[in-house]
Amino acid sequence: MGTRKEHDFIGELEIDDSVYYGVQTFRAVENFKMTGRTLKNYPFFVKAFAQIKKAAALANKEVGVLDAQKADAIAKAADRLINGEFIDQFVVDMMQGGAGTSTNMNVNEVITNIALESMGHKKGEYQYLHPNDHTNLGQSTNDTYPSSIKVATHEKLGHLLEAMEELKKELEKKAKEWKDIIKMGRTELEDAVPTTLGNTFNAFASYIKSDIAKIKAARESMAVLNMGATAIGTGINCHPDYKFVVEKKLKEITGVEFKPAEDFIAATQDTADFVHVSGALKTAAVRLSKIANDIRLMNSGPRCGLGEVNLPKMQPGSSIMPGKVNPVICEVVGEACYEVIGNDVTIMLCSERGEFELNAFEPGIAYALFNSVIVLENAMRTLAQKAIKDLTANPEACKNAVLNSIGIVTAFNPVLGYEKSASMAKEALQTGKSVADICLERGYLPKEEIDKILDPKNMLNPQMKSKK
Amino acid sequence: MGTRKEHDFIGELEIDDSVYYGVQTFRAVENFKMTGRTLKNYPFFVKAFAQIKKAAALANKEVGVLDAQKADAIAKAADRLINGEFIDQFVVDMMQGGAGTSTNMNVNEVITNIALESMGHKKGEYQYLHPNDHTNLGQSTNDTYPSSIKVATHEKLGHLLEAMEELKKELEKKAKEWKDIIKMGRTELEDAVPTTLGNTFNAFASYIKSDIAKIKAARESMAVLNMGATAIGTGINCHPDYKFVVEKKLKEITGVEFKPAEDFIAATQDTADFVHVSGALKTAAVRLSKIANDIRLMNSGPRCGLGEVNLPKMQPGSSIMPGKVNPVICEVVGEACYEVIGNDVTIMLCSERGEFELNAFEPGIAYALFNSVIVLENAMRTLAQKAIKDLTANPEACKNAVLNSIGIVTAFNPVLGYEKSASMAKEALQTGKSVADICLERGYLPKEEIDKILDPKNMLNPQMKSKK
Amino acid sequence: MGTRKEHDFIGELEIDDSVYYGVQTFRAVENFKMTGRTLKNYPFFVKAFAQIKKAAALANKEVGVLDAQKADAIAKAADRLINGEFIDQFVVDMMQGGAGTSTNMNVNEVITNIALESMGHKKGEYQYLHPNDHTNLGQSTNDTYPSSIKVATHEKLGHLLEAMEELKKELEKKAKEWKDIIKMGRTELEDAVPTTLGNTFNAFASYIKSDIAKIKAARESMAVLNMGATAIGTGINCHPDYKFVVEKKLKEITGVEFKPAEDFIAATQDTADFVHVSGALKTAAVRLSKIANDIRLMNSGPRCGLGEVNLPKMQPGSSIMPGKVNPVICEVVGEACYEVIGNDVTIMLCSERGEFELNAFEPGIAYALFNSVIVLENAMRTLAQKAIKDLTANPEACKNAVLNSIGIVTAFNPVLGYEKSASMAKEALQTGKSVADICLERGYLPKEEIDKILDPKNMLNPQMKSKK
Amino acid sequence: MGTRKEHDFIGELEIDDSVYYGVQTFRAVENFKMTGRTLKNYPFFVKAFAQIKKAAALANKEVGVLDAQKADAIAKAADRLINGEFIDQFVVDMMQGGAGTSTNMNVNEVITNIALESMGHKKGEYQYLHPNDHTNLGQSTNDTYPSSIKVATHEKLGHLLEAMEELKKELEKKAKEWKDIIKMGRTELEDAVPTTLGNTFNAFASYIKSDIAKIKAARESMAVLNMGATAIGTGINCHPDYKFVVEKKLKEITGVEFKPAEDFIAATQDTADFVHVSGALKTAAVRLSKIANDIRLMNSGPRCGLGEVNLPKMQPGSSIMPGKVNPVICEVVGEACYEVIGNDVTIMLCSERGEFELNAFEPGIAYALFNSVIVLENAMRTLAQKAIKDLTANPEACKNAVLNSIGIVTAFNPVLGYEKSASMAKEALQTGKSVADICLERGYLPKEEIDKILDPKNMLNPQMKSKK
Repeated sequence: MGTRKEHDFIGELEIDDSVYYGVQTFRAVENFKMTGRTLKNYPFFVKAFAQIKKAAALANKEVGVLDAQKADAIAKAADRLINGEFIDQFVVDMMQGGAGTSTNMNVNEVITNIALESMGHKKGEYQYLHPNDHTNLGQSTNDTYPSSIKVATHEKLGHLLEAMEELKKELEKKAKEWKDIIKMGRTELEDAVPTTLGNTFNAFASYIKSDIAKIKAARESMAVLNMGATAIGTGINCHPDYKFVVEKKLKEITGVEFKPAEDFIAATQDTADFVHVSGALKTAAVRLSKIANDIRLMNSGPRCGLGEVNLPKMQPGSSIMPGKVNPVICEVVGEACYEVIGNDVTIMLCSERGEFELNAFEPGIAYALFNSVIVLENAMRTLAQKAIKDLTANPEACKNAVLNSIGIVTAFNPVLGYEKSASMAKEALQTGKSVADICLERGYLPKEEIDKILDPKNMLNPQMKSKK
Repeated sequence: MGTRKEHDFIGELEIDDSVYYGVQTFRAVENFKMTGRTLKNYPFFVKAFAQIKKAAALANKEVGVLDAQKADAIAKAADRLINGEFIDQFVVDMMQGGAGTSTNMNVNEVITNIALESMGHKKGEYQYLHPNDHTNLGQSTNDTYPSSIKVATHEKLGHLLEAMEELKKELEKKAKEWKDIIKMGRTELEDAVPTTLGNTFNAFASYIKSDIAKIKAARESMAVLNMGATAIGTGINCHPDYKFVVEKKLKEITGVEFKPAEDFIAATQDTADFVHVSGALKTAAVRLSKIANDIRLMNSGPRCGLGEVNLPKMQPGSSIMPGKVNPVICEVVGEACYEVIGNDVTIMLCSERGEFELNAFEPGIAYALFNSVIVLENAMRTLAQKAIKDLTANPEACKNAVLNSIGIVTAFNPVLGYEKSASMAKEALQTGKSVADICLERGYLPKEEIDKILDPKNMLNPQMKSKK
Repeated sequence: MGTRKEHDFIGELEIDDSVYYGVQTFRAVENFKMTGRTLKNYPFFVKAFAQIKKAAALANKEVGVLDAQKADAIAKAADRLINGEFIDQFVVDMMQGGAGTSTNMNVNEVITNIALESMGHKKGEYQYLHPNDHTNLGQSTNDTYPSSIKVATHEKLGHLLEAMEELKKELEKKAKEWKDIIKMGRTELEDAVPTTLGNTFNAFASYIKSDIAKIKAARESMAVLNMGATAIGTGINCHPDYKFVVEKKLKEITGVEFKPAEDFIAATQDTADFVHVSGALKTAAVRLSKIANDIRLMNSGPRCGLGEVNLPKMQPGSSIMPGKVNPVICEVVGEACYEVIGNDVTIMLCSERGEFELNAFEPGIAYALFNSVIVLENAMRTLAQKAIKDLTANPEACKNAVLNSIGIVTAFNPVLGYEKSASMAKEALQTGKSVADICLERGYLPKEEIDKILDPKNMLNPQMKSKK
Repeated sequence: MGTRKEHDFIGELEIDDSVYYGVQTFRAVENFKMTGRTLKNYPFFVKAFAQIKKAAALANKEVGVLDAQKADAIAKAADRLINGEFIDQFVVDMMQGGAGTSTNMNVNEVITNIALESMGHKKGEYQYLHPNDHTNLGQSTNDTYPSSIKVATHEKLGHLLEAMEELKKELEKKAKEWKDIIKMGRTELEDAVPTTLGNTFNAFASYIKSDIAKIKAARESMAVLNMGATAIGTGINCHPDYKFVVEKKLKEITGVEFKPAEDFIAATQDTADFVHVSGALKTAAVRLSKIANDIRLMNSGPRCGLGEVNLPKMQPGSSIMPGKVNPVICEVVGEACYEVIGNDVTIMLCSERGEFELNAFEPGIAYALFNSVIVLENAMRTLAQKAIKDLTANPEACKNAVLNSIGIVTAFNPVLGYEKSASMAKEALQTGKSVADICLERGYLPKEEIDKILDPKNMLNPQMKSKK
């Protein structure tokens, strides 16, 4: 295969005839050698961008500014990208200057050249269909790029939410299964009062439930787009009806109820909705990490730790210590959470740094945000499937800890008062005696009342009686 | 005045008779010499804690576990704290171990001793009213402390929201006042296409509007309490009806519709709602900082900068450069935002570190979160009153920049196409000629059409015509 | 007392005659109502600023641009501030716009008015001694303010280093005392191979040692000043010899070998040395938090945790659970560390945001950095004195865990190989048998060799023998 | 090709005969589906690990615990990895649980199977050479993994330092070239006093110089290894001389003076040296971002900004605005810096979370740290080559701004005092008159003295004269 010549206002370049991208993509590849992660590593983003381009072409056709043949050729080419074809043509580094122009042009050029071929022309014959004049008609990077990030994020958050539902379900199963396993509650890592393993896992499920609600709420902001804003939100070079039609088309293509922002000027320069979404991911990461760490602690041992639950054995835990098994799933989940939290700082910085009518650092946001969503989804699923699903409990160990504990002295509080109870606790700790024996020795209460008070089951719910 | 003796299970201490706090507060003061910022520096927090204590006492009376005389004495003592009395008795460092136990005990001890005096007893005669057995009855630090943080945060967020409304109103005034001042829009700091100063300030108002909504949503989680959870959420040592009654009482006291959490186990150990609130504050800080920075840039000069707006002169700007005035309000607002963002990391760390049934680092959360809310409210108000209210514009400078610009070539795009337009832009930049002259010279379009296309007003809204 | 009139180029103000600060301070108090923390809450900073002013006055005298009477009056007034007098006159909020101008002017005005009185004039009679023309002569906020932050930080880092030495000493004492207490080593919270409690505390001491070195290295950058840079580093309005003389004077006053920066332009606009110092504090915070958390884990119990060490009982641990004691010191240390880490983000943001010849956000840096140094020093000292000093060990519990463990199977590795050892470990875990019994049963080795291999003491150092 | 069977103590698996990795790698691939970034995407890390393995094998041979044939086969296999062969065999996700065990085993298995083939055996015939018993002899993940991260980081920091030297050189060239171009200095974005473009770029070079020193200092900690620590630092299953020999061998292999840590217990559990290195990278990122942003501001325009310098045109800047060119290189550099800063938080979190004798989250550190070093090196090089090298200046625009400015009134300060100078500045701003004209009108000074004072060149260095 030969080469073709393409030019932009910087100059002319020879491009290998086999590639569908053009001169602007080519320059971007040269300019941005940063992470080694290119658009093709994020196929859901290319798909979202193609959906945007298809919607724009069809909207331009409907409002009468793009002839049907061109619009349809663009739409068909976009469909092929949506189906995952040509993914290897997306070669620009995710980290890029220009607020995403290079991503937009990579998409514009690939779609245009696919469309040109479908129209019987050769790649690069832009006189028949032009990446800027037609494929990008009525558009700007400044509306298509953030809109594509939002469409992509909206979809990926859907997958994350599915993974969270799966994790919640597994946690709820354990909560139900273990509702009668009494175990010691610990506050500040110190023995407190009894709880159940069911309570523990139910609380974990409550965490996830809470985060599902928060992420769903944050996701809504991803459905508000600025298509039609063009360069800075004023809608220059755009048809007045376009912004409504394009959202309608996008809904037909994606099935999602996208809608135009109220203030296009604000929507074009503002990236804080991504900060907000990342904040919701961070909150979920904080909770997920807490779950993973609590399980690591309960699983600690097998002989010199708490030994309350047993994680499934996933792999040998040590290259030197034979038979050792580590809580590898909980650990990798923790690392994922820490990446999400670090990315949150990156996203904040990129967002805070924007000036005037456009935030130049949006590609930094997209890169970090996509990485967060991907890794958090994987963490949720991995924990559900490889840690929670086959987790087992050690009910005897759990129960014995409670019976052996001093914290149960709390139950005497309403009957004997804080000071006498504290004095019994002190003696128990110093002598090793049980709280029950001390209470009996001191003649505070008859044995049967002691037994009733100290029955762990009676400590699992509010029990105090009215005096009247 | 003399001293009294008080003891706890650690031992006995002599306490000056003049003070209302007791042995446990005394130990906490010794133990925690950290920030130098004590509870009395956060009077709204003491107030909230007193509201909680009053609600608890009245609820305990109603469910029949605390006799009326004691309950009423506690409630009246709490009222005095609510009114701001005895604030100097709150002497524990805000940063403390023990998950807030020292704060709870400082409140318990002060209320108890005030109540004892009102009942005709002396301070320290805990046989008549005991800080733990009565003032803390049916409670634990683990429900009263996070609940008090939430009540306090709920109130302070209300003040923040008022300050944000004030800022929004000032921004909207400017947006309206300046809706016809045409100025250059800039993307990536480079000349783009025309906008108006009104658009700019309207976008800022949209920012604040968006954050008001987000903070209001996050604030709702501050109205969900775990009163009645006691030590770990099981409600040990609590009356079964208490949790509903206490919320009712709290509503009567505060006027706010507080409600019990669905899962008390989760609610007692989980602090991620504070992470969520802080996340909303952070998002608002990111946007506020962007506003302050854009204004700094527009105000830059007076001769060698953009000079589009003039901040009111608040103070001499330099100890060495006479007559220099600096954008001090925008700057201090930026610093406030950066503190909020840093506190967000602190809050995340404290939250992520919690183990099992209780997060030991809650005092670290309270300290950072309160500081964030305070400083962000001050920043919003300060910007509104000292920067936006008396901000003036330089309409001529704004307009001349547009007329002098090359970016307006964009308006030729739909008529001449991207490539011809780019070529004109290139020539304009190289030669210093105006775009209009070049277009005329090249014979692309007649003068009147050029004039119409280049009228900045025509670039402020979508103008493209359908071909059909 | 009456009032006096003062003016600046903004206008005239009436000032209460009792106060030593003047019109510019007054405006700053009005403008910056942010944190409620004013200069007087940071007396070491006022002291450092006064040292700078004294050095400047004496240097100006020496290079012949300020007459002796004025210079000496300024120097004497500065001495009184250095001695802690007039601290209540420092009323400007630490968080301020203007890159510290208001702090500089607060110092200039107070010194000037003290000096005026000492010269027989009244406050405000600036015709005899002027805050800008004399007290600030050859200076700018842009050199005195960062230099004062550095002088103050240099001193406070000295205190921090002392606290770290104290903590290191306490840790080393424990390491020595407990060098023969065998305990289980844990990797990833799972039983690994034996170590000693001495090793553990020696490692903690090594942590502190490493951070002492890092903080000492970072502290050196605090001794490099830009005095003489004036407004932007060019030294405008400054005598050519001044920059050398002022460092000499400062050394005489402080005893510290301060020296001028190589590139004054860079030194005046660059604040990244503060980021670097904060980074060293953060690294120390990460390690300190790890120490505190490991101790919390080893102290966990008393019955349902690891129970390897016993923290001194500092205060009752619960308002509801009698006799409960919490690791409050370790917890508050953790919170301090998290504040330091959050402040690190704030400092980074303030530093990253600076433009051109000056960083406007330096006051935000000073505020966060001072808070970090203060709280970290307190955390180091508190941990040393209230947690490590009286920490006790449970040698029996430590030893029994080792004897009971499976991890010791590792010692068979060099003799039996990884696969046989792993198989023994697996059987031990499933059956509850001891590793020694299994080895004997399988006839792998004679009893005496087994005993020798499994002697924990033999696992504490490299033991493998050469084959040749 | 067929399959072979491999087993570990979890069970048996069929492995495709074509692959060189074994059962433990296989499990890790299944377990860790997180980032999609595998070891093979970080070839310098595989290389470093192979260097470690080679050094260990040769050291074991020398101390007499591994026979020469096996040792040499391992060393030769390692050499092939060092040369970049078999990179596709490194298939484990960089983000993994198990503290790096899966990475270590991936390396152990690939080396073992390559060596087996070279010894005339088949892959998987571990009876002749075993991944754990021989390739991992005297080693643990817990010494080889952190040591490999350090060796890899040490090398990559070398590349980063080269890129920084290159950037410094380009900046210094500009500083020299532009030493006489007078431009306005700006403090707080407001006109201050004159400087030169040379000063500006010299300051940037000073930034880089300062960071080179800091990174070099931090890099030293990467040369301190814990090889021989084995599982927890006690050196169990290791020959007593090994730790010295292995460092010697490693030096022969790499040319770098690696040395053993003083405290192996601390060195094995502590990861804060990575936090320290990341802190140095973060500080460099803060400064680099400041440089990039200052250049963006100076380049802003072309007509409605500061227009002091001209970035080379790298690519068309807009899909909609013809002829627009954006500062894409400065922008992408900023994003890189923000990733580094976010990664710093991730690294801190992973490090802070470690418990007891090992930090389980080290793979999270490696992943984030490597990404930081890579992207920062790319950013330094990209800025040097694509922004600084061909940057041009607009000397006329720079000079006119100075002449037109009011800030030059500062130069009158030493002669006329602050108050008169401020009054002239005020009038200049209000009337538009020049400062010189006002001074003349007011009769303060004769024209020639005014001219001399206002000559910008006289403001570029300290000029004040002694009175005596």
